[in-house]
Amino acid sequence: METAGRVIRCRAAVAWKAGEPLVMEEVELAPPKGGEVRLKVVATGICHTDSYTLSGSDPEGVFPVVLGHEGAGIVESVGEGVTKFQPGDKVIPLYIPQCGECKFCKNPKTNLSSKHQCLMPDGTTRFSCKGKSLFQFMGCSTFSEYTVVAEISLAKVDHRAPLDKVCLLGCGITTGYGAAVNTAKVEAGSTCAVFGLGALGLAAIMGCKAAGAARIIGVDLNPDKFQTAREFGATDVVNPKDHSKPIQEVLVEMTDGGVDYSFECVGNVAIMRAALEACHKGWGTSIIIGVAAAGQEISTRPFQLVTGRTWKGTAFGGYKSVESVPKLVEEYMNKKLKVDEFVTHTLPFENITDGFDLMHSIARCLVNIKYNCKIEK
Amino acid sequence: METAGRVIRCRAAVAWKAGEPLVMEEVELAPPKGGEVRLKVVATGICHTDSYTLSGSDPEGVFPVVLGHEGAGIVESVGEGVTKFQPGDKVIPLYIPQCGECKFCKNPKTNLSSKHQCLMPDGTTRFSCKGKSLFQFMGCSTFSEYTVVAEISLAKVDHRAPLDKVCLLGCGITTGYGAAVNTAKVEAGSTCAVFGLGALGLAAIMGCKAAGAARIIGVDLNPDKFQTAREFGATDVVNPKDHSKPIQEVLVEMTDGGVDYSFECVGNVAIMRAALEACHKGWGTSIIIGVAAAGQEISTRPFQLVTGRTWKGTAFGGYKSVESVPKLVEEYMNKKLKVDEFVTHTLPFENITDGFDLMHSIARCLVNIKYNCKIEK
Repeated sequence: METAGRVIRCRAAVAWKAGEPLVMEEVELAPPKGGEVRLKVVATGICHTDSYTLSGSDPEGVFPVVLGHEGAGIVESVGEGVTKFQPGDKVIPLYIPQCGECKFCKNPKTNLSSKHQCLMPDGTTRFSCKGKSLFQFMGCSTFSEYTVVAEISLAKVDHRAPLDKVCLLGCGITTGYGAAVNTAKVEAGSTCAVFGLGALGLAAIMGCKAAGAARIIGVDLNPDKFQTAREFGATDVVNPKDHSKPIQEVLVEMTDGGVDYSFECVGNVAIMRAALEACHKGWGTSIIIGVAAAGQEISTRPFQLVTGRTWKGTAFGGYKSVESVPKLVEEYMNKKLKVDEFVTHTLPFENITDGFDLMHSIARCLVNIKYNCKIEK
Repeated sequence: METAGRVIRCRAAVAWKAGEPLVMEEVELAPPKGGEVRLKVVATGICHTDSYTLSGSDPEGVFPVVLGHEGAGIVESVGEGVTKFQPGDKVIPLYIPQCGECKFCKNPKTNLSSKHQCLMPDGTTRFSCKGKSLFQFMGCSTFSEYTVVAEISLAKVDHRAPLDKVCLLGCGITTGYGAAVNTAKVEAGSTCAVFGLGALGLAAIMGCKAAGAARIIGVDLNPDKFQTAREFGATDVVNPKDHSKPIQEVLVEMTDGGVDYSFECVGNVAIMRAALEACHKGWGTSIIIGVAAAGQEISTRPFQLVTGRTWKGTAFGGYKSVESVPKLVEEYMNKKLKVDEFVTHTLPFENITDGFDLMHSIARCLVNIKYNCKIEK
């Protein structure tokens, strides 16, 4: 059945209210407007950011909304003026757009762009359900069998790429990996510490290893994560529970003065401080990757910075999204980047709520949701 | 009278106890040991760090001590094995040594070196008074008619240089100027904000201007400082008292999103936060130059860093001391660097306590102390 130009009725997991479970609903998805692309979602990951927003803890969260921002799919139709994409293209939605025109896109120092919107660029939404408009989370809304995204928020990837794997390059893996290779610019021979050995941490370890780090120290309270961390490239693992001293002091002693680069992959402000203070005087650089809860603050003595440490953060690993995601997919296809190894569970779309439970209960957070789309007229 | 190899008896301002005024005393200064140099101090500046240490607020302060670390002088004699210096050389003592051998000196990313000691490298002191040993503040002790410093803590400068001016390159001017040109690496055309328009702030403005900044915004609560700031290169001046909003919001609005580089030249942790938060999302970098009181902490929301701001600090402007100070003296001699303009008062040595009072009461902190040495056998 030809769907282009028509409203698609499909299933989506709707977040009606903060703090309530997702509800599988039949939604209506309007055709893409100018500069937009409608796609069939083939798979999506679940990220802690989806869960955080659903919980209502994010003061900027809006409802009702279709969550999901780590997906991959196939173009179904394109709006007016869209020439970069055509039906059948394999694509990854991007929660940081790359418009190429704003002052962020034109500045090589950043990968940010215009503000993440939960609406299309024209200020409206393509989703509705039971007569109500639904917001489009981070412009992606991948918890739906179909979605519409702006073309500046979409990357076309290799037609051979397995979408149920490369969807994970839409957020977690790219963020952790890029934190090491782009934001920190880890150098060959350096010593690194990675705090938190979930998906972000494993990706950061993979980035440190790719950059040629001589020593990569994984830090986590859960020893069940250590074996995987070693498989990804950690040369040492440390459990703060095994030490009576603060973990930063343990690391400073282990490394004759501190690490060259550290990465906070948890979202805990106390760990952000420990990660900074584990850095070597004179040149150590600490990168915040984890997202802390609203209202939380980082702190340290300014002497830590005056004596040469640098405190930075990263979003989406510093990658300019549209131009970089296709390259990361190529690296994966050429076996330079692990992706399959991040997947712990694969569930059908209707079980997405189980995926959230799994994410919170297991060591790593990447739950792969496979879609089996049903469209109704 | 030949003094080499003998104990010199000269005047020094001794800090006997924390929180008590300096006392002008006759002290005994032993000849330099191997790797050390004894010099006649010709002039010194007074720095807030001297005052902070004298106050007893620094938990690492040691007493009794001869303070002063921003001086210049003439070599009187050298210890065994010293070949780089000879009597008559004009020199500037350096509170951060450059040994050339430690892991800091060998790393191009830092200008730090072995820990600042209040003793000579062999763990002893050359100063004594009334039978008591006196510590040598930061290895310099320039509040004395003569002092002994390690050769790794001494820069030989142009023999034509006026020592009563270039002494100020031993701390404040170098620190503020280098924060802009070395630590921040301010780029041509950029927008900068300098918080605090004392000597450090004026030097930072001078550095921003030298780097080609298009806009340099000076921030201070005291409007009496604005004219001088403009003379040094500020294109705008802002008084937080003139605004009801937090100063970081004022600057973000003034600059369409924030400054590219900001400098904290006060030593106040609330201003350090404001300086960071005045930076542009995506690429803004804030440099802490001021020294906060012991126990004080900086804080901010981690989102500030995750969205692309960088928080750094600087000591001695990032300059590797031995190799850089002679070059800065040359820049001054070639009129590329202002120094004379920083001097607000010149006092005789015996009035050094008045200098501390002036430093605290006036807008700028550089009080030049001229020596009129008297040596007794």
